[in-house]
Amino acid sequence: MGAVKNKRMPRAVREQQMLDAAVRTFGQRGYRAASMDEIADLAGVSKPLVYLYLNSKEDLFTACIRREAAALTSAVRAGVHQGLPADRQLWEGLRAFFTHTAQNPDGWAVLHLQARTHGEPFATEVTAMREELVAFVTQLIAVAAREAHREPPPPERAEHEVAGLAEALVGAAESLAAWANTTPGVSAKQAAATLMNFAWAGLGNLMDGRAWNPPKS
Amino acid sequence: MGAVKNKRMPRAVREQQMLDAAVRTFGQRGYRAASMDEIADLAGVSKPLVYLYLNSKEDLFTACIRREAAALTSAVRAGVHQGLPADRQLWEGLRAFFTHTAQNPDGWAVLHLQARTHGEPFATEVTAMREELVAFVTQLIAVAAREAHREPPPPERAEHEVAGLAEALVGAAESLAAWANTTPGVSAKQAAATLMNFAWAGLGNLMDGRAWNPPKS
Repeated sequence: MGAVKNKRMPRAVREQQMLDAAVRTFGQRGYRAASMDEIADLAGVSKPLVYLYLNSKEDLFTACIRREAAALTSAVRAGVHQGLPADRQLWEGLRAFFTHTAQNPDGWAVLHLQARTHGEPFATEVTAMREELVAFVTQLIAVAAREAHREPPPPERAEHEVAGLAEALVGAAESLAAWANTTPGVSAKQAAATLMNFAWAGLGNLMDGRAWNPPKS
Repeated sequence: MGAVKNKRMPRAVREQQMLDAAVRTFGQRGYRAASMDEIADLAGVSKPLVYLYLNSKEDLFTACIRREAAALTSAVRAGVHQGLPADRQLWEGLRAFFTHTAQNPDGWAVLHLQARTHGEPFATEVTAMREELVAFVTQLIAVAAREAHREPPPPERAEHEVAGLAEALVGAAESLAAWANTTPGVSAKQAAATLMNFAWAGLGNLMDGRAWNPPKS
């Protein structure tokens, strides 16, 4: 990209280009190995401009984490249509999650690997995103429970159980996304179907050949 | 502990005391905030002796990760009795995992939080433990599949599916152990039962009240 062309760009656009370059570099090389020179080169701007806009390598990395976390949670929320049965909502949420992480492998590497393996303040940023995903899944499981039960279980026990299931499901999804992105031949839809089977039909049923089947769409 | 008494201890014993103190300090304070002074005090030895035995803060932390990882994988393997049906083996493995992580919360914090959030070489150490757990679960699921199927599914598809399920299950267990250790009123047995239900009976069945029931023992 030419310097003349860049000079005419609004700040917001140029900042997004810097973040695109930074996510790619951090995701592929790791936080420590990534250099500001490389990021500036890839964004087609000068290194001083990166520092002027994003202040420091640490602030740039924090901005990457925030942007990628917001994009992932938005994608999951946008993928789910409220009002559908709970299993459909879960399936849609999982499809959206695995599609987004497969389409943005560098963003997912930043969130799942880099942000967690380079201490604070980065880990706290990812924890906030994780809590949002857990809250979203918790609400979804509560809907499923309401659909299935005429009488609700005792509130305190149910709360712990649902919270535990949500933690388990989010942990499973994180782990599976990292695996799918590094295993050739595993598509986002396959990863989502594996977790849906695991979560909905259960291993026991699955092993007996009674799988939960994704809708034909 | 008196200095005179310590002088008579064999090196191996004293090293374990240092590691006990280090795991507790790293687990509770975090890798960066933990000081070698504090660890030496807690172990009842001088700081130069800690450096003499374990070389550096980084090497001490690595030794903690290795010891805790070996203890956790041993506990899981010891908890499982081969030859039992797959669901019993899985239940025993989960019980052993959650019992160990509940009884060693500082060790689990070192493995799950500290080792992953402070970069290399620590993250690689934990990855090795994780791969061992995934391999163990993969084998267990393969046993379950053999028990349930007369005819095996096409090998390649089955391999991906089983590997994905194992990744999901290990991710769910990690996530749930961290949650159980920080949530008052959640026992190791409850956490294990939640994941067993999730994994075996499946969310769908669970929500319909068809839960997998732990054996009365």
